[in-house]
Amino acid sequence: MLTEQMDRVVVVLVRARNPNNIGAVARAMHDFGFRHLRVVNEYAVPFETARSAVDASEVLAGAEAYISVAEAVADCTLVVGTTAVGERALQHPLHTLADAGEKIGSAAAGGGRVAVLFGSEKTGLSNEELSHCHWLLTIPMADQIGIRHPSMNLGQAVAVCLYEMVRRKDSVVADAVDAAAGAGEVERLTALLGDVLEATGYTRRHPANSDEAQIRRLVLRMDLTASDVPVWMGILRQVLWRVRGG
Amino acid sequence: MLTEQMDRVVVVLVRARNPNNIGAVARAMHDFGFRHLRVVNEYAVPFETARSAVDASEVLAGAEAYISVAEAVADCTLVVGTTAVGERALQHPLHTLADAGEKIGSAAAGGGRVAVLFGSEKTGLSNEELSHCHWLLTIPMADQIGIRHPSMNLGQAVAVCLYEMVRRKDSVVADAVDAAAGAGEVERLTALLGDVLEATGYTRRHPANSDEAQIRRLVLRMDLTASDVPVWMGILRQVLWRVRGG
Repeated sequence: MLTEQMDRVVVVLVRARNPNNIGAVARAMHDFGFRHLRVVNEYAVPFETARSAVDASEVLAGAEAYISVAEAVADCTLVVGTTAVGERALQHPLHTLADAGEKIGSAAAGGGRVAVLFGSEKTGLSNEELSHCHWLLTIPMADQIGIRHPSMNLGQAVAVCLYEMVRRKDSVVADAVDAAAGAGEVERLTALLGDVLEATGYTRRHPANSDEAQIRRLVLRMDLTASDVPVWMGILRQVLWRVRGG
Repeated sequence: MLTEQMDRVVVVLVRARNPNNIGAVARAMHDFGFRHLRVVNEYAVPFETARSAVDASEVLAGAEAYISVAEAVADCTLVVGTTAVGERALQHPLHTLADAGEKIGSAAAGGGRVAVLFGSEKTGLSNEELSHCHWLLTIPMADQIGIRHPSMNLGQAVAVCLYEMVRRKDSVVADAVDAAAGAGEVERLTALLGDVLEATGYTRRHPANSDEAQIRRLVLRMDLTASDVPVWMGILRQVLWRVRGG
């Protein structure tokens, strides 16, 4: 999902009670790069408490308060509810999070604003609140209990949903993987290891492990990077030098 | 990921300070169906406090305490660290969470036990702790700040990682490869190689290559199979015996 699409996604917390949870949701949004948080509550205490916390994020500073779902989603072209499977008789199409992420991405790419609703910690979204939704999403969990199982933390549920949306974006990650060692280097290391086995008496004691092909396979299985070859060469040369009376 | 594979994944919290975070991690594990939690800490207070919370989960009741990373991962064939991109000079291969989920699934499908390490809330994993890891994973986030940005909540980070593992419905077919060496065996080999470097004088001549973490990473990069460990142990013991005047 591109940044301009992420800016069309609005997280809507409906009747969240715990200020810490509202703060955790805001931080998850910040971490994944989402900016628009709306809080629907008949009374303002949890939101105001969260907003006055010393570590409140920018997302929270810019969050908007509404007193109804209808108002909170009025400018959105797609409204998605989050729910537990089997929590109630579903009157909406239900999608797993992976499918939902794709549909939300398409809607945002098409220029629409998308609201994703999360219900209260205790009761989830009510039927009235769900009635504002085009369809529902559920997070695949153990026993398919869905995201509104009491033990599913609100901040974790939001974090997982946002991760699903951003993970499609091809992210560039530093490639810390070294180039593999060339066969010539492997061969030199094999020869040197053979000398060590000979000089230390290993070959005499374990002839079955010591023929050249065995040693080469042993070295090949090290799956060496080019930069590790000189380290191992140095170690083996030092062993040889010492064994030969240096 | 199948249930039997999920049972081979171990979440390891290293120096977590906040009992609430330990509890949140345990609940995320419960929600997604993971059971094995290990807590590494020099002092027991955070873990004991989390475990005595009224809402402590079954996962927490079954969690195990360790005083070192080495002990906590000794029975694991793959050890994965979590880190922020750019947090420090990376000396390990780095994978995005999506790729990491696939690799972890393959390892678990192959019968190995996989440890996923999460560092402390403030500092992440230290270089010594990272030296026990085969490779690192990072969660793609805004600004590529990675999962150990101070604002990324530990419980949320674990929830997102576990979601990535369970969202793949299709089970991964085990590759017909040799069993990987356990971390305990790698640790014994690391110690023995350290003795060899010391006894041969390598340590004195190349101190920059010879600290314990460097040697451990060198051995981990060998990507040893279980059956190669005794061969290398035999070679190094022979070297030691010879160097010490046998």
